[in-house]
Amino acid sequence: MRTIDWETGTIRIIDQTALPAELRVETIATIEALVSAIRRLAVRGAPALGAAGALGVALAAVLHEGDEERIRAAARSVREARPTAVNLAWGVERALGVLDKGTGAIVAEALEVLDEDGRVNRRIGRRGAELCTELGLDEVCALTHCNAGALACVEWGTALGVLHQLHSVGRLRRVIATETRPLLQGARLTAWELAQMGVEYKLIVDSAAAWVLTQHLVDVVVVGADRIAANGDVANKIGTLQIALAAAHAGVPFVVAAPESTVDRATADGAAIPIELRDGDEVTRWAEASMAPTGTSGLNPAFDVTPARLITAIVTEDRVIRSSGPSAGGP
Amino acid sequence: MRTIDWETGTIRIIDQTALPAELRVETIATIEALVSAIRRLAVRGAPALGAAGALGVALAAVLHEGDEERIRAAARSVREARPTAVNLAWGVERALGVLDKGTGAIVAEALEVLDEDGRVNRRIGRRGAELCTELGLDEVCALTHCNAGALACVEWGTALGVLHQLHSVGRLRRVIATETRPLLQGARLTAWELAQMGVEYKLIVDSAAAWVLTQHLVDVVVVGADRIAANGDVANKIGTLQIALAAAHAGVPFVVAAPESTVDRATADGAAIPIELRDGDEVTRWAEASMAPTGTSGLNPAFDVTPARLITAIVTEDRVIRSSGPSAGGP
Repeated sequence: MRTIDWETGTIRIIDQTALPAELRVETIATIEALVSAIRRLAVRGAPALGAAGALGVALAAVLHEGDEERIRAAARSVREARPTAVNLAWGVERALGVLDKGTGAIVAEALEVLDEDGRVNRRIGRRGAELCTELGLDEVCALTHCNAGALACVEWGTALGVLHQLHSVGRLRRVIATETRPLLQGARLTAWELAQMGVEYKLIVDSAAAWVLTQHLVDVVVVGADRIAANGDVANKIGTLQIALAAAHAGVPFVVAAPESTVDRATADGAAIPIELRDGDEVTRWAEASMAPTGTSGLNPAFDVTPARLITAIVTEDRVIRSSGPSAGGP
Repeated sequence: MRTIDWETGTIRIIDQTALPAELRVETIATIEALVSAIRRLAVRGAPALGAAGALGVALAAVLHEGDEERIRAAARSVREARPTAVNLAWGVERALGVLDKGTGAIVAEALEVLDEDGRVNRRIGRRGAELCTELGLDEVCALTHCNAGALACVEWGTALGVLHQLHSVGRLRRVIATETRPLLQGARLTAWELAQMGVEYKLIVDSAAAWVLTQHLVDVVVVGADRIAANGDVANKIGTLQIALAAAHAGVPFVVAAPESTVDRATADGAAIPIELRDGDEVTRWAEASMAPTGTSGLNPAFDVTPARLITAIVTEDRVIRSSGPSAGGP
């Protein structure tokens, strides 16, 4: 089952806020509902947001058949639902690119974005597994942060797709998953996917990543990306930078797995990537309960930027971009 | 009100598991109850554990008047309740040092440990504030991790004591407190103390520390310590190492504030410090609810070790130990 899909004029998503307690499927029939689903992270993850962007334009084309102005306005509101992941804008633009060809062509283009996602992710997975071989890793203990799995994509996954590929050929020994505060995408979603795959895994608090790395419990870190700047700086879930620093400190390779659609050549470097600040209540409250004294305000950046020099390699469907990170070989 | 105190033959503690919802006071009348309170973190923090160690011996002396063997056995069980903070053993040894002088002398020695804590922490606070001046910091935005406040001591605090001192002379602009998963000592205890002091503060997830530091929102990091090895390596709450790496990356001074009783000359370096592994359920569950799929196991180290070279200075009541950390001056 795809994380996000098209179903006779509507968008069907797995509501990721309900996992792991419930596998809830939601049908989205309006642009407002789609924007809301994106904002509350019912659909999330850079590649899935690319699909949501393209499907949003398809939905607008169906709802506003032939009214280019209204379709473009709807596309704008979808594109602006979240600022950091460049795939959202990329998906919107892909579908808008065939706007003059009519609704059928727009829907077909959006479906092609979805199909591509599966193909692209499997290629990323194979390249990532090859990279592990090049890094001298046969059986792999990997650490991943947040969720860059099937749930973050249409299917298969990027970072978790690499681990899925390793698992499918018997080369994945164990995964350490960070819980990923504040919304626990690691504890809720990555743990769920790993359990479904039958992979042995352990959950840690985000703060324990450096300890795990310095204790040599991990051979490689593999994470996804929300935007890759032209110079190779990578925006990803808040906390990624601390893990990259810890990996460099411990001499463990740090690998980013993402589709080419996450590369944003129009953004020169990490400093130019807009970082979404989300509601501070996501930090101070959990499941209706306050964890901090009344009146406490949270500061809640959703992403941070890891400089290119801390990244051993970026793996896309087309290439492996080597940097000067720890244990990096090659050109 | 002291965090831990002696009251006519019993130990009285603030139960730190109940804060910030409730300021609950617990009376401890047996060694078993004391060991349990230490293990479940009702009393926690290296200096408070030193007091608990000394008071534990006093309680044993009262309970087993004149029976040296039983007093020593009780002292052993208190000392072994938690392995990382060296102050616990230090406090036990302080009180055992006057065992041959009788119950009155033992109780007096334990009370002296408590009195010293308040005096020592105020001296640490003044030295820490002077260090900030030396670092060129007049008004200070500080980041702290976990809770090294009055609640971690008998009174006043170590790292938070430095910030309290700065606040009392109008030099503390703002504090960024990390929530400190898994047990949220930052969100629950540090936020509570800062609110009581009337200090402006913001709460962040532990993963956001590197972002906050690279955004220049913080002038100095001040944390406590659970054990300082002879070479200056510091064991402290899990996540401290990641913050130290991020501070070095961002060029922000990283300061450790702790009493001399936390310095363990018998331990050569950080690698020799025993790290407590706590129950994995602390990671996977919160407030009776499971946050991860059923069957998920947590890996839960309670501390990590920050190497001396990442530490700008260690401030004790007697001295400022300068290292080669970022922005460090002096010898």
